[in-house]
Amino acid sequence: MRKRSRTPEIIEAMSRAQQIAFGPFVFAACVSAKRLGMLKVLGQSGGLTREELAERMHLSPYGVKVLADMLVPAGVLRSEAGKLFLTKVGECLEWDPLTGVNLDFTADVCFKPLAHLEEAIREERPAGLSEFGPWPTVYEAMPHLPPQVLASWLRFDHYYSETAFREALKHLAGLAPRRILDIGGNTGRFCELALKALPQASVTLIDLPGQCAMARSNAALAGLGERFATAPVDWLDPEAMPETGGPADLIWMSQFLDCFSPDECRSILARAQRLLAPDGTIAILECILDNQDYEAAHMSLAATSLYFTAVANGNSRFFRRDELAAILADSGLDIEREIHPIGASHTLFLCRSAREDGAC
Amino acid sequence: MRKRSRTPEIIEAMSRAQQIAFGPFVFAACVSAKRLGMLKVLGQSGGLTREELAERMHLSPYGVKVLADMLVPAGVLRSEAGKLFLTKVGECLEWDPLTGVNLDFTADVCFKPLAHLEEAIREERPAGLSEFGPWPTVYEAMPHLPPQVLASWLRFDHYYSETAFREALKHLAGLAPRRILDIGGNTGRFCELALKALPQASVTLIDLPGQCAMARSNAALAGLGERFATAPVDWLDPEAMPETGGPADLIWMSQFLDCFSPDECRSILARAQRLLAPDGTIAILECILDNQDYEAAHMSLAATSLYFTAVANGNSRFFRRDELAAILADSGLDIEREIHPIGASHTLFLCRSAREDGAC
Repeated sequence: MRKRSRTPEIIEAMSRAQQIAFGPFVFAACVSAKRLGMLKVLGQSGGLTREELAERMHLSPYGVKVLADMLVPAGVLRSEAGKLFLTKVGECLEWDPLTGVNLDFTADVCFKPLAHLEEAIREERPAGLSEFGPWPTVYEAMPHLPPQVLASWLRFDHYYSETAFREALKHLAGLAPRRILDIGGNTGRFCELALKALPQASVTLIDLPGQCAMARSNAALAGLGERFATAPVDWLDPEAMPETGGPADLIWMSQFLDCFSPDECRSILARAQRLLAPDGTIAILECILDNQDYEAAHMSLAATSLYFTAVANGNSRFFRRDELAAILADSGLDIEREIHPIGASHTLFLCRSAREDGAC
Repeated sequence: MRKRSRTPEIIEAMSRAQQIAFGPFVFAACVSAKRLGMLKVLGQSGGLTREELAERMHLSPYGVKVLADMLVPAGVLRSEAGKLFLTKVGECLEWDPLTGVNLDFTADVCFKPLAHLEEAIREERPAGLSEFGPWPTVYEAMPHLPPQVLASWLRFDHYYSETAFREALKHLAGLAPRRILDIGGNTGRFCELALKALPQASVTLIDLPGQCAMARSNAALAGLGERFATAPVDWLDPEAMPETGGPADLIWMSQFLDCFSPDECRSILARAQRLLAPDGTIAILECILDNQDYEAAHMSLAATSLYFTAVANGNSRFFRRDELAAILADSGLDIEREIHPIGASHTLFLCRSAREDGAC
């Protein structure tokens, strides 16, 4: 594109394309500046020269200058009369908890694995996980991840799910469920919160045998006697059914269906309905890509989907609303209520069997 | 930040902060989509459904969907009535040569090394180079880099310097130089172009012994007899002077001074002036950070500085104009002409000794 053909539209597109091409530099500069204390020192000052900043940070003037060279055009710092100041964007990067969780998740869990994204898509496996070790999925890798990687992963996971679980439980309390099945309950965190919030309820966690064992060793769940049980199952075996000991009045699935293909979802939902009492509810908590109020939340979900691709399992992504709605309709489930937002970006679907023969 | 405190200014800052935090995902999605042929196929079609696109790309529908989920909010694709279209930004990523060179340079040379940026700044060495091998700087690493890394590096280097060299030579031709010293001549590419463009001139390439040997083995320079010579020197030895066999009427330094600290620059410029004839010119070609017409060019230079930090040598960066001007003034050099832009983003400074005792 020669200069004479540079219309404002092309200049803007070119500018955005270079922002993308240099995005990893901006990201790395922000993470480094934050971890080296540069954002904090600047935020607590009324503006500093590069030399003053270097002295306070016990860093070379070169280091401060080369970071500032990038952080100023990136909008994180402002340079005025020879002094550097932190912008609102810089304040978010330093002090906002959501931004901090996202930044650390990208830096520690996803950054180097993303170099394998093309391979992951081509081969339909989480090829980026090889940066940490030889595991087939992140679920097997979890207990062996380096401490900083695991810590950033857990903080990301908990930040989003903790608030969502607590808010969802307020809505579930109105249903006064007695027997709950937590399908895909993983570490048992939802079981823990549910047993606290709903003193009349008992919960059975249903997951792979490894996850069931992990949940049984969860100290907060031990000692609850008959109120907590586990039932192992591998839903990918199309005949498999967990032993739940009787119909449930509430089945809970949190970010569970998004781990499966549409056909697998239909098969799982058909079998799940056989575990449900006639008036029972299936409560599905999902992040729906196109249900988001903020552009940033939309991008956050799209990024998390790519984490599934490159690091986690190679085949998950968050649903668009029409995709999930079609699966539920195909499975004979009516959406009775749809509550959004739950937490930062989740949607809660309360569903009932439309078919009379759907319940046992 | 609770919702009630979300003013438009904070929403915008939060949105920008998340764009930064997820920048590596956007980048990886774009590189993967381009290398998997997705951008090209879409650009050559009048819009395709995700399923049609997957079929044409011989890729899983999942792969297409998870990439599109990110490329739509990133502004690279547009989704309308169930079909995907390439935007102007997507066209730049696929077809614009400058964008392509930048994208490949970031992906192949810089991406994984940028995970070591904090360490590089803290330890003042190119810590990211460890992703490729155990070399102290990229200059020693060059002959051993994996082919794709080297190819992307060379394309980036040549894309910017080739045009700049040719344009600069048009300005130098007016000076009708006979004896040229190319200080920091590296592979000898400028010598080659200069000897072609200026048939009356001879050129001596001055660099480290390894670079001199490399340039002497350059086929295009061999056989030029007395018109081409090399003179090894290590400028970091403050007493060192190259053997040039007589005063020059033009000294050329292209992206050379930016490899040194201000004190080192002053020492080098003092010695360089002793190699110059009384009326001689020192021509300095540099990318000046704050001389850029386009925001994208500014960001490109800031990114290249971070490449110097993390991958190349751990201590270089492009000058801001006042920094270079101060060094030239301290060294007794007057800027006679300043020509901008040369090529995409360079500035050419034509300087003369202000002090009578500056020349030999």
